[in-house]
Amino acid sequence: MNHEKTIVDLVVNQFEGKVQQTSAVFTTLGAEAAQLPVAPDRNTVGYLLGHLVAVHDKLLEGLSLGERLHPEWDSLFLAPQQNGSTYPAYQELLGAWQQVNAELGAGFATLTVADWLTKHAYVSDEDFAREPHRNKLNLLLSRTGHLFHHGGQLVLVKR
Amino acid sequence: MNHEKTIVDLVVNQFEGKVQQTSAVFTTLGAEAAQLPVAPDRNTVGYLLGHLVAVHDKLLEGLSLGERLHPEWDSLFLAPQQNGSTYPAYQELLGAWQQVNAELGAGFATLTVADWLTKHAYVSDEDFAREPHRNKLNLLLSRTGHLFHHGGQLVLVKR
Repeated sequence: MNHEKTIVDLVVNQFEGKVQQTSAVFTTLGAEAAQLPVAPDRNTVGYLLGHLVAVHDKLLEGLSLGERLHPEWDSLFLAPQQNGSTYPAYQELLGAWQQVNAELGAGFATLTVADWLTKHAYVSDEDFAREPHRNKLNLLLSRTGHLFHHGGQLVLVKR
Repeated sequence: MNHEKTIVDLVVNQFEGKVQQTSAVFTTLGAEAAQLPVAPDRNTVGYLLGHLVAVHDKLLEGLSLGERLHPEWDSLFLAPQQNGSTYPAYQELLGAWQQVNAELGAGFATLTVADWLTKHAYVSDEDFAREPHRNKLNLLLSRTGHLFHHGGQLVLVKR
């Protein structure tokens, strides 16, 4: 029996479960927490929400699942947080977070195991030939780790 | 072609890569950071090191890879950090962290794909029959997420 689909599902389900749990965290924190830093002089909740939107939006591109929804936010949220930047409203970011992740979920459903093992968009054909582990599934694993990383910070917020 | 071994390796390599990176973080922070909290009134670096030792030590048991090395620390490090607790010395914890992870790595090398898909030690036969995703590989994914979670906190430490 071939278990590869079972194993891919474990990885995809971990990502989706963590997205769901993170959505609940951002919803519970709410717009009134947008300006609160996770620790003194560190990133704010609003910045981290925008950062995660941008990184997951870029994942649509990385996995070749379709057009990005908010590339216009990259300069705000893929760069470090800057004092004095004006960010989109928290509720707008939260809506985008849900929309981007819904697009990802719809895309995942179209991928076969063989698709998951093809190269992601940020590695060249030459590099992928030498390093075949740099596939779409590995990119998803990496983004799951990224989400847990920031999730660990969000639990520190003091209201 | 059957890719299940390739996919299991991605998951195992992510865990091992993050262990390695976390070892470097704890080594760089050093014993002088043991009492520093990741944020005001939050867990200290020393507690988090002990906590990760305890959780990874328990993973030896969860994956049925052999005897645990430091069950005597569970009461300190699987419980929340308590003011006034006396912890083992940082260097002792760091040595244990390296030893426990080396044991895990040696154990991983003995597991086949079929082994990874068997139940872990914390789920009953009955529950596993109903929920076959509660296997060893899923436990490893969960512990990888846990490690990223605390890794996100360790970057916030101010020296």
